[in-house]
Parts: sequence; C-alpha cells; structure tokens
Amino acid sequence: MTAAQHMVPPEEITTVACAGAGTIGGGWAAYFLARGFRVKVWDPDADAAPRLRRLVDAAWPALTELGLADGASREKLSVHTDMAEALEGAQFIQESAPEKLELKQDLLAALDAEAAAGVVVGSSTSGYSMTDMAQKVQNPDRFVVGHPFNPPYLIPLVEVVGGEHTDPQVTAWAAQFYEHIGKSVITMDREVPGFIANRLQEALWREALHMVDNGEATVEQIDRSITDGPGLRWPFQGPMLTFHLAGGEGGMAHMLDHFGPSLKSPWTRLDAPELTGQLRDSVVSGCAEEDARPVSELVAERDRGIIALRRMIEQMRAVDPIAAAPASQGEGVQDQHQEEAA
Amino acid sequence: MTAAQHMVPPEEITTVACAGAGTIGGGWAAYFLARGFRVKVWDPDADAAPRLRRLVDAAWPALTELGLADGASREKLSVHTDMAEALEGAQFIQESAPEKLELKQDLLAALDAEAAAGVVVGSSTSGYSMTDMAQKVQNPDRFVVGHPFNPPYLIPLVEVVGGEHTDPQVTAWAAQFYEHIGKSVITMDREVPGFIANRLQEALWREALHMVDNGEATVEQIDRSITDGPGLRWPFQGPMLTFHLAGGEGGMAHMLDHFGPSLKSPWTRLDAPELTGQLRDSVVSGCAEEDARPVSELVAERDRGIIALRRMIEQMRAVDPIAAAPASQGEGVQDQHQEEAA
Repeated sequence: MTAAQHMVPPEEITTVACAGAGTIGGGWAAYFLARGFRVKVWDPDADAAPRLRRLVDAAWPALTELGLADGASREKLSVHTDMAEALEGAQFIQESAPEKLELKQDLLAALDAEAAAGVVVGSSTSGYSMTDMAQKVQNPDRFVVGHPFNPPYLIPLVEVVGGEHTDPQVTAWAAQFYEHIGKSVITMDREVPGFIANRLQEALWREALHMVDNGEATVEQIDRSITDGPGLRWPFQGPMLTFHLAGGEGGMAHMLDHFGPSLKSPWTRLDAPELTGQLRDSVVSGCAEEDARPVSELVAERDRGIIALRRMIEQMRAVDPIAAAPASQGEGVQDQHQEEAA
Repeated sequence: MTAAQHMVPPEEITTVACAGAGTIGGGWAAYFLARGFRVKVWDPDADAAPRLRRLVDAAWPALTELGLADGASREKLSVHTDMAEALEGAQFIQESAPEKLELKQDLLAALDAEAAAGVVVGSSTSGYSMTDMAQKVQNPDRFVVGHPFNPPYLIPLVEVVGGEHTDPQVTAWAAQFYEHIGKSVITMDREVPGFIANRLQEALWREALHMVDNGEATVEQIDRSITDGPGLRWPFQGPMLTFHLAGGEGGMAHMLDHFGPSLKSPWTRLDAPELTGQLRDSVVSGCAEEDARPVSELVAERDRGIIALRRMIEQMRAVDPIAAAPASQGEGVQDQHQEEAA
C-alpha cells in the first residue's frame, strides 16, 4: 500500500493538522485557517493553546487585509495534547517541531503510526534532509519537506523536496497543495543541505559574521548596507536578475563576459566557481527563461518598484509611533515562546 | 597646502562635476540636478551628451515623485568633452569611470591636475581601494571612495572610505556632503575589498553560481527564493536584525546560543568564523545598539512592512501592462550604453 493510492486531490482537502505550535507551526495554523481549513493542532505542551490563540489573533488582521478565503474562521481551530485526537480526520499534516534531528525522527515515526493512509506529511525543517529525518518511519514514501519562511502566514515561499524514499507523486502532490493554498512553491529535484534560500542568506550571514569578527563593519552598518542598498531591489528582482540588469543592454551575457574576472577578486571569503563556458551559458539562458523582456523594461519596472517602496517606507515611518503602539501594548505578535526559523 | 584648508562647507556647495557619463555617472548627475546643483559632466565620448540627457529625462519623473529641491532644474546640466571646461567652477567631483584600475589611476591623476585646490573627489568604484587608485595623483589627501548603488538616483546607500593618504577630514567632509544631499552614508574606518554591501551580495551571488554550476537550482529558482522569501524582509530589516527576530523573545542572544551549532552545518560553501564569546557578544550588543526595541515590536513592524509591500507589488502587477509601456516605447531608462555597477 502506497500513500499515492490513497491521496485526496489537493483541492478537496478540508482538514489539516499542524504538529508543533511554536512560531512556525502557529504561523502555518493561522495561514491554514485564513485559507478556510479546519485546523487541528497538536502540541505536547499544555501551555501551547493560549499562546497559539494569541499568535493567530495577532496574525488575523494581516490575513484579513490580504484576503480571507470563503468560510475562513478562527472558530475552526482546535488544539490537542493528544496526537491521535489531533490527527483524527486530518488529510494533510504540517510538521514544525524544534530543529533537532533525533526529535524530528521520533516525531515523524509517531505521526506515521497515527496518520491515516494516504495522508501526506510536510516538514517545516529549515535544513535537514527528509532522507535523514525519515529514518525511523514505516512509510517514508509520504514524507516530504515543505520549508516555509517566517512568518509563514506572510512570506509566500515554500521549498519542496523529497527524500530518498519519498514517492515522486507525493512530492508533486505537496507542491500542488501548497500552490493551491496560494504559496510560491519551488520544487527541488535533489536534496541539498539548507535548500536554496537558506543557503543564499546563510552565505550572506556568514560573510557578515566574518566582517564583524574582523572589525570590518558593525552590525548596524551591515544591516543598513542591505536595507538602504540592494535590499531595496530584491523584493522585485532576485540576485540573478539584479546582475542581469548590471550588464546594461547586453544583460547577463555582457555582465559575465565583462565582470567575470571580478569573480577572482577577494571580495568575499567565498571563492566563486570557475566561470566555464557552460556555467556562463546556463546563467545567461536562465535569465532569458526567467524574464525575456529587454533590460530597459526590467530597469523601468525595478525603478517603479523602488520608488513605490521608498514612499511606502516613508509613510510607515511617519505613522510609526501610532502604528507601533498596539504591539508594545500587548496586542502584537510578541508571543513567540520559541525561536523562529530564520 | 592640503585640501582640508580649502574645503567649502558641504551645505555651501552649488556646483558639482561628474567625471564619466555612463549609467552610474549619469545617475549621479540626475540626482545632483534633483538636489538643485549646477552639474557639469565630463565624458570623452562625444555621443555621451544625448545619452546622458535621455537618462536624466527618464529619471526625472521618479526624482520629481520623490521630491525636488528648490531650484532643481534639468537646465542646470552641461556636458563637456574638455575636462578643464567641465571642472571650471566645480566644488566637488564624483568620478564614475569604467571599472579598470589603470584607467582610474590615470583619470584621477588628470582630475587632480585640473581641479581647484580644496575640491574633494569621490570615486564610485565598486571595489578598488583608494590607496590603489590614487597611486599617480599629486594630492591623494583629497581623494575618497563614495560608492553608490545602482541606480544612484534611487538607492540611498553610499559607502565612504578613504585610502592610506586620504585626509580623515576629507573623508568626514565627503560623508557630510553625501548626507547633506539625502544619502544614507556608511563610513568605513578601513579599506576592505568590495566594501560592505558588495561583499555581502557577492557572497550570495557566488553561492548562487555554485548552485547553478552543480545543477542544484535554476536561475529562476534562485531569484524566486529571494523575491518571494527573505527579499520581502530585507528592505525593512537587514540580515542581522532578521536573525535577531529569528531568536524569538530572546533575540540574537538566544539565536546564537541555540542555533550557533548550525554555523557548522554544510549549508553553504563558505565556512563561518568560530563563534567565540567575543563574536557572540559583539553581535548581540550590535543588535541592541541598532534597535533596542523589544523583538515583539520589531516583529509587528516587519509584518506591517511585508503586508504593505505585498499589496504594493500586487497593485503594481495589476497595472503593469500600462505602466511598463513607456519603457518599451523608447521613453525608459534603456540607454545604458555601459554596464551598471552591481
């Protein structure tokens, strides 16, 4: 019996379970509620329920602002310390336990033993491979990584990747399910530690730590170098398109042919790969596949974005003392009792 | 005679010169015009003038939207192929020539020979040290790096750092001048290849190239992992505050104490520095110095920012076919004849 034989089509799912009610699990719960699901949360901590409800209440205005699905209601939330009770009727499970391998292995085995046939389990792990996490489960075919970004109710990205024994149909199903509920899904075809986004931000973070360690920059300088610099471009165009635009009308091809030698510069502690003709062509064609419009048009779009973003930030700062008040008066999302996934 | 003896207070500057009229030099020219200066641009290429005017015209609506200074006018722009003519009356010079060391060395020497006493020269170089660039000048005390981000008329960041022979008073003057004209200035106390922001984005870029090279991710996946993920947080909170929030109520201290071991994970090809007690304390106190508000308040602020940003992006996409039209019809900033600084 395989999970794929029993899976419900993603659009027919009405009830989901969340295993773990911390910041990430609670954020998922809030998001699932906003999408109209009945949400059953399991957490072994008896104090989890009130904390979770505060988190959901704090997130609800934002979710309302972004648009609730028909039938969305906080009344559809239930919290359980008993796992069997929580999984009863659940058609999908999102696991968001603390980031400890052995704990995850035991938890996935327990979920596997309790969950009905055909129920897919997505893990919020920020870096473990499903191959490692699923060592103790009986049915590894239905376990897949579905890695969100914090806060899961606001950041669209979910990275999906299966383990060695995950059924490719399960991976595809999970991607469809997350897309169906409005997420921006990236399906990886192989396991890479840290997936994609965490590898990229971790590279930046490690270089930043080296700079602080060597006294080359302060924490404040590092942050401002991003918020007032490239951070104003990245919500609109990622690092590859950013460099595509850096090539002027010639785009990425010109950029690599012209600035390729700078990859040899001691600009970071990380050495770049050899810029072979094959790598050059992969990057150039990748940019064209991602967005074939002329660079001039991408420049205009980026500029409109930055202007709108800067005006928005100005307006937010202008109203900040008032807007910030609810949080400091106890109504904000201050109830994170455990670490958020970075 | 030193430059410092002859420097005009930053707020009394009325005329600036730009050496080089490419994307970066032209972007600086547009910005200086918007701030009300008379701007004299030198470029040896006779075709530079019409291109520059198109660039300024394309940037002007954005600059108008962000607010023009009293007296700002495109009529205050002049373009010269003769350097002496361009520098006549200029009280500050921004150099934005192509990124070639020998070319920069010769150009700075020529500018030094022509510029009046006390005129400070800021270089837009994206990575060379002023110590290297000023090898051939007679008065290295007045040369300083003032590194902008593209486009210089929209991105606030300017990194300021002097060379071995730069007068610290000149470095301070340049920082004051850039701040006076509305820039977000980071003054570095030592020369580091790539300064700060370029080192950080270069670390990310190099990791991305490795991933493409190994077939671990496509160009499109890399970009979307940023635009739909951490890129939605970085305009509001830089990488250090991002991890400060990742620590929940315990902030960066909890984050480092708890997730420190993950620095040993093979999450990127760049090894992290040893997390010594000293480094830990530097990062923790750096976060507190940058923003002492409780994490709950920072979380609420980030969430408001992400919501507003997502709504803004939705609205931009909704009007995109119309808004994008001018660029594709020949009115956009498509006249980059040379590479943009990344």
